[in-house]
Amino acid sequence: MTTTEYKERLKRFQEALQARELDGALIFQAADLYYLSGTAQSCHLFVPATGEPLLLAYRDTTRAQAEAALNQVLPLSSFKEIPGLLAGAGWSGLKRLGLEMDVIPLSLFRRYQELFPDCQWVDISKILRSQRMLKSSIELEALRYAADRHAEVFKYISSVIRPGMTELEIAAEFEGYARRLGHQGTKRFRGQEQGMIPGIVAAGANSALASCFDIPLAGQGLTPLYPLGPSRHRWEAGEPLLIDYAGVYGDYTVDQTRIYLDADVAPVLQKAQEVAMEIAARVAEKARPGVTAGELYDLAVKMASRAGLGEHFMGHGRQVSYIGHGIGLELNEWPVIARGDQTVLATGMAFALEPKFVFPGQGSAGVEDTYVVTENGAVSLTY
Amino acid sequence: MTTTEYKERLKRFQEALQARELDGALIFQAADLYYLSGTAQSCHLFVPATGEPLLLAYRDTTRAQAEAALNQVLPLSSFKEIPGLLAGAGWSGLKRLGLEMDVIPLSLFRRYQELFPDCQWVDISKILRSQRMLKSSIELEALRYAADRHAEVFKYISSVIRPGMTELEIAAEFEGYARRLGHQGTKRFRGQEQGMIPGIVAAGANSALASCFDIPLAGQGLTPLYPLGPSRHRWEAGEPLLIDYAGVYGDYTVDQTRIYLDADVAPVLQKAQEVAMEIAARVAEKARPGVTAGELYDLAVKMASRAGLGEHFMGHGRQVSYIGHGIGLELNEWPVIARGDQTVLATGMAFALEPKFVFPGQGSAGVEDTYVVTENGAVSLTY
Repeated sequence: MTTTEYKERLKRFQEALQARELDGALIFQAADLYYLSGTAQSCHLFVPATGEPLLLAYRDTTRAQAEAALNQVLPLSSFKEIPGLLAGAGWSGLKRLGLEMDVIPLSLFRRYQELFPDCQWVDISKILRSQRMLKSSIELEALRYAADRHAEVFKYISSVIRPGMTELEIAAEFEGYARRLGHQGTKRFRGQEQGMIPGIVAAGANSALASCFDIPLAGQGLTPLYPLGPSRHRWEAGEPLLIDYAGVYGDYTVDQTRIYLDADVAPVLQKAQEVAMEIAARVAEKARPGVTAGELYDLAVKMASRAGLGEHFMGHGRQVSYIGHGIGLELNEWPVIARGDQTVLATGMAFALEPKFVFPGQGSAGVEDTYVVTENGAVSLTY
Repeated sequence: MTTTEYKERLKRFQEALQARELDGALIFQAADLYYLSGTAQSCHLFVPATGEPLLLAYRDTTRAQAEAALNQVLPLSSFKEIPGLLAGAGWSGLKRLGLEMDVIPLSLFRRYQELFPDCQWVDISKILRSQRMLKSSIELEALRYAADRHAEVFKYISSVIRPGMTELEIAAEFEGYARRLGHQGTKRFRGQEQGMIPGIVAAGANSALASCFDIPLAGQGLTPLYPLGPSRHRWEAGEPLLIDYAGVYGDYTVDQTRIYLDADVAPVLQKAQEVAMEIAARVAEKARPGVTAGELYDLAVKMASRAGLGEHFMGHGRQVSYIGHGIGLELNEWPVIARGDQTVLATGMAFALEPKFVFPGQGSAGVEDTYVVTENGAVSLTY
């Protein structure tokens, strides 16, 4: 990333801080930190409403200094030094500061309150999440890089899967190949994680298993503390096979799902698969600047209903109220393509679109790709 | 896990709530939730100071009900229903409630405050972390299960590594083999994650790379947002090779490091390796009921200093102030075997012990195994 890129990001963020009449913001979460500074080392970043940001890095500053696109990087030995270091850089008497309140733990917030007892605290997570919705050309290039690699993994896995393999064996094949291509072996998810598994491989009825999580399907998983993803169930001919993975290559994440349906799979699933493909194509075509996320959601629901599959769309019983989610440095960014969401699409927004149908006891159908909004509709990066 | 096991856990937790004069506690974090209820589905668990706990499960309750060792599992459609559901079960007029304040995000805390505006909130994270330090016989069995599998992966990787492989290739081999044995492909870490990578493979100088994280060494990683773990550096003969992975098989985690030093590796590293092995053996022997964690730390530091390697122990420059960490459902449990830590060891505590030496520009030496405290000292599970 270039210094210009970070200057632009900081400028936009500082304009938002000024509009909220904030003196500045204290950033600690890794993805936000990286987005604004270029490093995700363990740091506290102070961004004043105007002027030069100050990066305070724990322990060894070598890497933070090498990575950060900022001029001021200082070592931090102890949390308590923060007010003194800010004052030393000319920042004292701070009265109104922004924090990432969606992710900051209560205990850390209370320690901030002790350091700055007279300060008023404001949530700036929405500012950052809104700003991060719009990807720059450099970010889009990074997304394409991740998408190309992920699509290659799906191409590979399509060539090696065969009935008789367990979900776990397929997962190990997928993950091993992805890792060799540079997959980070993990992903970043904003806020409370949902079981944190690398991805979902689920065959037959397992691909329709419900859960308490806000996702259309979960898979069986191996044990209760990791209740998503592959199990040791063997994929049998005639069972749909779902493979849903986040692809994290470089610093950016894409999301992709393929569901493999051979000729023996029940006709209702074959039909649902066709409908899902149509929904994906129509929603992508409609996803142009000016359209709201909620309108895309409504279109998808209407198409599912007209096909007589409304009660299976995005879950069965308790359905989730979205068909897609923003994506970039984290798996769950904005916009959420959700019921009633008023976010107006703009060129350069990236999201995963995942129309899926769930048939309890039988399996699931559907597709997921990662798209970028252009003047002519959303274009899939993951093919 | 048996119902008896959960009854015993809840009884001890409720005794602690009573001692703090709390009406009860609201639990949301996955590991704590699983520890007390048997499920890690997306739930809020209310544990009253006396009486039957109530598990409120989002969306589909099927799995929460099947997994939980509790009688009362109710569906939850919306966060706002919590006070009504509690009142319906006989719990109203709650005045003093415990929360996991070390991990609860500020935004969730504020929503709790709105639901229970007259309530006083108390941090119960220390209660839970203290209770979870002591592993039951069922938990120790689960740790042994994880340790046996992880040791098998290390045995495998020892047989396939050879100079010329990149750190990433070695990581992919390790992770693929582990996944086939049932490794969850992820791990649980309490609180703010530190880059979340699956493990560290680092050769030569990379194995001595410092970072801003509170760990003795980090590896290079692939990109700044994932700044730990393997890079594309090729392991060359004469370079030390460090492999450090958490092993998550079933619901429990162990931690293990092996550093491979061939005859061409610099003598100072060979010597440090011997000293690390001696430290591990002596600390394990001393780790008996009644000894404090701080005393173990002091012993290790003294041995490192006497060997003339004090300035390389647990980092170089800014050293970390611990030599080990509790482990179980999460990678970073209590006790922390740290400077000044007053935790008194007891039979059934489990911890990873990792005496390591860091030589900037050259590499690292050392070892890590997962131990359980017995009357006769700590016994290694990972061989």
